[in-house]
Amino acid sequence: MGWDALFASRADRMRASEIRELLKLLEQPDIISFAGGIPDPALFPDEAFRDAYQAVLAKDVAGVALQYSVSEGFPPLRQWLVGQMAAIGIPCGIDNVMITSGSQQGLDYLGKLLLSPKDTALVTWPTYLGALQAFNAYEPRYDRLTPGLGNVTPKAYADAAAEAGGRVKLAYLTPDFANPTGETMDRAARERMLDLADELGIAVIEDSAYQALRYDGEPVPSILALDIARHGDIEKTRTIYCGSFSKTLAPGLRVGWICAAKPVIAKLVLMKQAADLHSPSINQMAIHHVAENHFPAQVAKIRAAYRHRRDRMLAELARHMPAGVTWSKPEGGMFVWLTLPEGMDGAELLARSIKTARVAFVPGGAFHADGTGRNTIRLSFSLAGDEAISEGIGRLGRLIGDVTKGA
Amino acid sequence: MGWDALFASRADRMRASEIRELLKLLEQPDIISFAGGIPDPALFPDEAFRDAYQAVLAKDVAGVALQYSVSEGFPPLRQWLVGQMAAIGIPCGIDNVMITSGSQQGLDYLGKLLLSPKDTALVTWPTYLGALQAFNAYEPRYDRLTPGLGNVTPKAYADAAAEAGGRVKLAYLTPDFANPTGETMDRAARERMLDLADELGIAVIEDSAYQALRYDGEPVPSILALDIARHGDIEKTRTIYCGSFSKTLAPGLRVGWICAAKPVIAKLVLMKQAADLHSPSINQMAIHHVAENHFPAQVAKIRAAYRHRRDRMLAELARHMPAGVTWSKPEGGMFVWLTLPEGMDGAELLARSIKTARVAFVPGGAFHADGTGRNTIRLSFSLAGDEAISEGIGRLGRLIGDVTKGA
Repeated sequence: MGWDALFASRADRMRASEIRELLKLLEQPDIISFAGGIPDPALFPDEAFRDAYQAVLAKDVAGVALQYSVSEGFPPLRQWLVGQMAAIGIPCGIDNVMITSGSQQGLDYLGKLLLSPKDTALVTWPTYLGALQAFNAYEPRYDRLTPGLGNVTPKAYADAAAEAGGRVKLAYLTPDFANPTGETMDRAARERMLDLADELGIAVIEDSAYQALRYDGEPVPSILALDIARHGDIEKTRTIYCGSFSKTLAPGLRVGWICAAKPVIAKLVLMKQAADLHSPSINQMAIHHVAENHFPAQVAKIRAAYRHRRDRMLAELARHMPAGVTWSKPEGGMFVWLTLPEGMDGAELLARSIKTARVAFVPGGAFHADGTGRNTIRLSFSLAGDEAISEGIGRLGRLIGDVTKGA
Repeated sequence: MGWDALFASRADRMRASEIRELLKLLEQPDIISFAGGIPDPALFPDEAFRDAYQAVLAKDVAGVALQYSVSEGFPPLRQWLVGQMAAIGIPCGIDNVMITSGSQQGLDYLGKLLLSPKDTALVTWPTYLGALQAFNAYEPRYDRLTPGLGNVTPKAYADAAAEAGGRVKLAYLTPDFANPTGETMDRAARERMLDLADELGIAVIEDSAYQALRYDGEPVPSILALDIARHGDIEKTRTIYCGSFSKTLAPGLRVGWICAAKPVIAKLVLMKQAADLHSPSINQMAIHHVAENHFPAQVAKIRAAYRHRRDRMLAELARHMPAGVTWSKPEGGMFVWLTLPEGMDGAELLARSIKTARVAFVPGGAFHADGTGRNTIRLSFSLAGDEAISEGIGRLGRLIGDVTKGA
């Protein structure tokens, strides 16, 4: 039958991610891959998870782990998160925290809560591709944040949004070690973001997926912490913090959280009840078990491993990249962002690399809401060993050199 | 800050379920509850789940269970479901099956896929409250299906939908042992449903949450099976089947599935990728492990237990209910639906019952999209023991008798 005629217009915005399609093609064993931005499974605390699932499935509690539970999430896990939030300058209560199925679900729900068709979402160019995909279902227009440069004036953003038939509803940012750039917003840029948001009267979505993965430099206060410092109380803030255990403990359990003022959490809990009832009880209990017993040690372990890989990649880039190539120097996270010489195309470079150099990476164009950024690529160091980094960056440098020389 | 001004209009439709609020109030230990329609945790296969989580977290596979995975779901579980579907007359392939986080998520995604604001969704009065909550976010209008009575003419449905500013997009039904009525559609009613859907050119959402829980009588072919029989091939059907492991194995893992023509599954996979990436890898693997090793025995065990409770409840109703009260005789599922004498109000009866008889149930009005059905109540027998059923139905019968007599 003619299904297309039955689909709502928002379904047209559901497009396959070129990047994810690409990653499937790149799973050939002789390719050195810097493409996938995922945690190294060798670093998962699998022993701790074995203990945790045994504990939550013990005779006296299995009935709870396997049963329906409340939409806001497992209370002891939310209470543990209250402690974590306090430790990073975000005093709050259990009713300011809800559990989501990964922070990706948080982004989807926030799009659903805030965006009507034609409303404007402010994002950086480039930004996290998954945020664009989540918001796309709610049919917004995008406008460009340039927090490092001071942004456009509030009036210019508001006028452009009104002209497009809606209003500015939110700004979305990954302030620490962003995917894809690896860059971190300094404190002044975060304060400017809050100034802009206060003037526009909009929500700020702070995606903190990588926040715990800092390898050096001083931590910068989270935007929500600065918002609380500015207004005195989380109930007076406009920042919605999205956290995740995917990068610290394991992504396969799909456990993340949102921390925000109570009116936001209350609406999101109703939304979650209607959308999937609750995140799996058993996984929330297992994450709580592992977090309580192993979180600081686990974070220390992955920081050391990823720091080493980042250092190696930066050293090899300095050794092998030809003149005209620049890159970010991330203080944490999983990504280095390369800017190729003007006119060089990251997607074409990848096609050539797969044929000759056999090195994989992600072309940067897909991360741009407006299709710019063609001369950029994303390299991930989270999965690569020492030899692969040295060999892969060497090959990539020679390939870029060849392209530069027109060879 | 003024959050209400930032919320999209769809957020106004997120309302607390009165029923769920009510259930919280009813968790007092001296109350006999027939309210919660949830599985009995004493029947969960917890030993099998302990084995399953140990197996999927074994050293050589833990990295898969804890890692990101594909949006369509764990392939061996989808393949197992292909076998299950074939066994109930639904021949299909792995690309006709995707995993959802419970069938509730399937309903949310189908609303998102099909409904634009002002479109019409056809539902029975009463219907599953969670379906109304899921669809509400997409701002439809509801019109009434009466499959047992032959429905309204296709033209009448279409005209009313057009007058409301949209079109009919879907019909939603729970054909087997429905929540809340416990009733099952006969084959003729299912065929009439397909006739109507063919004429209107709409999707039929078949919610099969309780299908495996048949205690007596002959199984009726699923609507999707009849649709395939009619059109020859799942790719030519309009029925979207939503299944769930929540009632057979355990709800706390949040694993359900959708089976439908490939164009529908392909769109839903893109939607899921944007909305939560994938359902938890580890739970899909654990469900697969338990399903492969224990499914028929587990279903036989819960059928025997719930059949006994249903029989007991029906016998006690016959013994204790005063004249003027009627009820459904479910062949499966978890619910008996009582119709009180005309003019008696289920919500008022509950308020009085909590004070005096100390028996809990769910007033039926909430299950009606138009607010009718005030003289109905839902009784669940899934959680109650023999003595509680006898004592509770006895007290409830005396209370209704008192109200009838104006006492």
